[in-house]
Amino acid sequence: MSEHTPTHEQVAISLDDRSYDIHIGQSLLSRQGAWAGLPKAQTAMIVTNDTIAPLYEAALRSAITPHYKQIHTVVLPDGEAHKDWQTLNLIFDALLAKGCDRKTVLFALGGGVIGDMTGFAAASYMRGVPFVQVPTTLLSQVDSSVGGKTAINHPLGKNMIGAFYQPVRVVCDLNTLQTLPPRELSAGLAEVIKYGPIADMAFLDWIEANIGALMAQDPKALAHAVKRSCEIKAWVVGQDEREAGLRAILNFGHTFGHAIEAGLGFGVWLHGEAVGCGMVMAAELSHRLGKVDAAFVARLKALIASAGLPMRGPVIDAADNAGHYIEHMRLDKKAIGGDIQFVVIDGPGQAVVCSAPDALVRDVINACCA
Amino acid sequence: MSEHTPTHEQVAISLDDRSYDIHIGQSLLSRQGAWAGLPKAQTAMIVTNDTIAPLYEAALRSAITPHYKQIHTVVLPDGEAHKDWQTLNLIFDALLAKGCDRKTVLFALGGGVIGDMTGFAAASYMRGVPFVQVPTTLLSQVDSSVGGKTAINHPLGKNMIGAFYQPVRVVCDLNTLQTLPPRELSAGLAEVIKYGPIADMAFLDWIEANIGALMAQDPKALAHAVKRSCEIKAWVVGQDEREAGLRAILNFGHTFGHAIEAGLGFGVWLHGEAVGCGMVMAAELSHRLGKVDAAFVARLKALIASAGLPMRGPVIDAADNAGHYIEHMRLDKKAIGGDIQFVVIDGPGQAVVCSAPDALVRDVINACCA
Repeated sequence: MSEHTPTHEQVAISLDDRSYDIHIGQSLLSRQGAWAGLPKAQTAMIVTNDTIAPLYEAALRSAITPHYKQIHTVVLPDGEAHKDWQTLNLIFDALLAKGCDRKTVLFALGGGVIGDMTGFAAASYMRGVPFVQVPTTLLSQVDSSVGGKTAINHPLGKNMIGAFYQPVRVVCDLNTLQTLPPRELSAGLAEVIKYGPIADMAFLDWIEANIGALMAQDPKALAHAVKRSCEIKAWVVGQDEREAGLRAILNFGHTFGHAIEAGLGFGVWLHGEAVGCGMVMAAELSHRLGKVDAAFVARLKALIASAGLPMRGPVIDAADNAGHYIEHMRLDKKAIGGDIQFVVIDGPGQAVVCSAPDALVRDVINACCA
Repeated sequence: MSEHTPTHEQVAISLDDRSYDIHIGQSLLSRQGAWAGLPKAQTAMIVTNDTIAPLYEAALRSAITPHYKQIHTVVLPDGEAHKDWQTLNLIFDALLAKGCDRKTVLFALGGGVIGDMTGFAAASYMRGVPFVQVPTTLLSQVDSSVGGKTAINHPLGKNMIGAFYQPVRVVCDLNTLQTLPPRELSAGLAEVIKYGPIADMAFLDWIEANIGALMAQDPKALAHAVKRSCEIKAWVVGQDEREAGLRAILNFGHTFGHAIEAGLGFGVWLHGEAVGCGMVMAAELSHRLGKVDAAFVARLKALIASAGLPMRGPVIDAADNAGHYIEHMRLDKKAIGGDIQFVVIDGPGQAVVCSAPDALVRDVINACCA
C-alpha cells in the first residue's frame, strides 16, 4: 500500500444471519466504500450528541445522502448521566414525529453512550429496525460498538435495561480520534489494555512498547490498536453472542468498575477510567487468589498508569467503603443469587469467572482505594 | 377421558432453541403438571394487576412455591392506559430493589397488557431473563400471550416500543375465564373470530354454530376455541417469527383497530373491540377491492354482532374523520414509506397484505363509522 493511500481494513463478526463487518480506516466518513450495501430504506435517522454533531454530522449526512431520500438527525445531550429512559425516549419521539417506518436505518454517531442508546432504540422501535454504529471515540471503536450489547442505565445499576441486538455494520473512522480529549483517549486505552491479560499477551507486549505513540495519538499505532482489539472481540463474541459463558471475560475490571460508576453517580468518572482502576483491583484479587504473581499485577498497574488512568479507587463511603462497593457489586448482572462473580486472570492471557470470599474482596478494596 | 378428569392439552410452538409449549386446561393454576420443568432459579417475580391479584395471585404463588426460594410480586394498575414506560419501570424498580439476577423467572399473570409489558420487561432486564405467560383473559389466551410479541405504547402509536421475545411456556387456565366480565369476553372473541377468515373457514363455521355457547362461557366451547386459535397461531408464528411476511395476516382488523384505539386514546375501547370493528372495515375494503363478495362481509358482520362487539367505528374527528383515521394508520408498523399496508381477505380463509387507494379507504371509513 502506498504511503498516501488511506487505510481501509475490515474485521468480520460471524453470527449466522446477524453477521457484519467492522470497517476500520482513515477518512471513512467521507469515503463511499464504507457506506455501500447497507439495507435499503427511504429514511435514515442520525442519532448523535451536542459535542459530536458540530464535528461530524455534516460529513456523515453527506456520505449517506446517495442512499436515502430523507435523513433526519436527533441531537441528544452528551454524557453518561443522560444514558437514561428520558433521553432514550427523545429518539422514539423523533422517529414517530418524522413518521419513520420499520425499514428506517439508524446511525449511531458518537461514543459508547450514543451507541448503546441508539442500539437499544433500534432494538425496540417497532420491535427492531436496522442500525449502523459510527463510533467516534477510542473506547467505542475498540469495544462498545462491536458485539451487539445495547442498554440504558437505571438509578440502581449500569446497563440494567437493554438488549443483545447486532448492528448491520460498524464504521470506525480513525480520523475522529484526532479530536478526542486526552481524558477520553485514556479511557479508551483501558479497554485496549484489557484484551492483553484476558486473551493475548503478545498484544500486551505491543501496547507496552507503543504506549507513548498511543498517548500521542499516532495514527498508525491507533490503527493497529483498534484493529487488534476488534479482532479479539470478534473472536469472543462469535463464540458466545449472548454471554452464556466465554463472553463474560470481556468484563475484566468491569465488576469493580461498575461499583465505582454507580457509587459516585454515572458520569463522574468516565467508564474507561472506572474500568482501568477496576482492572487493578481485579488483578490484585487474581493475585490474592493465587492465580498470578505480584510481578504481573505490578506490570498491569504500570501500564494503566502510563495510559493516564487512575490507579486507585475512590472512597465512596468513609464509614464502610468496602461494604459500599460490595453492595453495588451484588447488583452486577453476572451475580447469581447475590453471589458476585468476578472476572479474574487465571494466568497471563487467560481469564475465568469465579466467586471470591467476601473477606478477601474487602481486603482488595481496602488495599486499592485511596 | 372421564367426565371428571379436568382437561390438560398442549400445543407446541416450534422455533428452534426458542420452542415452547402452550398448556391449556381446567384448574391448571393449581395443578403441578403445568409448572414442572421451567428454568431453574432462586427467585421468581409475579407481575400482575390490581384486578387480577386478589383473584389468582395466591394460587399461582402456591403452585410455583416448590420451585423457587423467593417469590416476589409486583402489582400494576389495570388497563391499556397504563401500558406505558412509567408503569413498565415499576417492574424494573421492583426487580432491582429485590436484587433479582439474570436467572430470575418472571410470571405474567393477567391479560394482554400484563403479558406485553412483562414480556418486554423480561426481554430488557439485564438484556433478557426467562418469562412465563399465565394469561387470564380470552384475548390473551388465544392471541397475545402466544408468539413473543411484547411492547408498550407510545403516545403517538400502539405497541411502538417492544421486542420479539418468546416466553418459555404459556399456561392457559380455562377456569380464569369464568370470572371474565362480558365486555372482555366479547373482546377476546374478536381475536378468535379473526382466525376463521384469514386461515380456517371450517373454524369459522364452528364459531358461528357455537357463538351462543361461547357467549354463555360454556367451558367445553371455550376450551376448543382456545386450543384451535393457539394451533393456528402456532402454525403461523412457526413459519415467520419476526413478521417478515406471513405473520402479518394475524393483524387482520388491526390497522383500522389501532387507529380507533390511538384516536380515542388507549383504553377507551378495549383492544378486542377495536379489532372487531376493524375487521368489519377490513372486510368491507376487501369487498371493494373485489376480493370477497358482499355475502362474505355480511356473514362476518353478523358474527361480530353476535359476539357482542361494536360493528361501527367511532367518529373521532367530525370535520374529517377519514383523514383522522388515515393519519393514524400511516404510523402503523406495517406502513412502508407512509404507504399504509392493509391485511385483506383474498378469498375466504386466506389473507394477504396490500396497499389501497386513499379514496377507497376513505369510502370504507365513511361507510363504516357511525
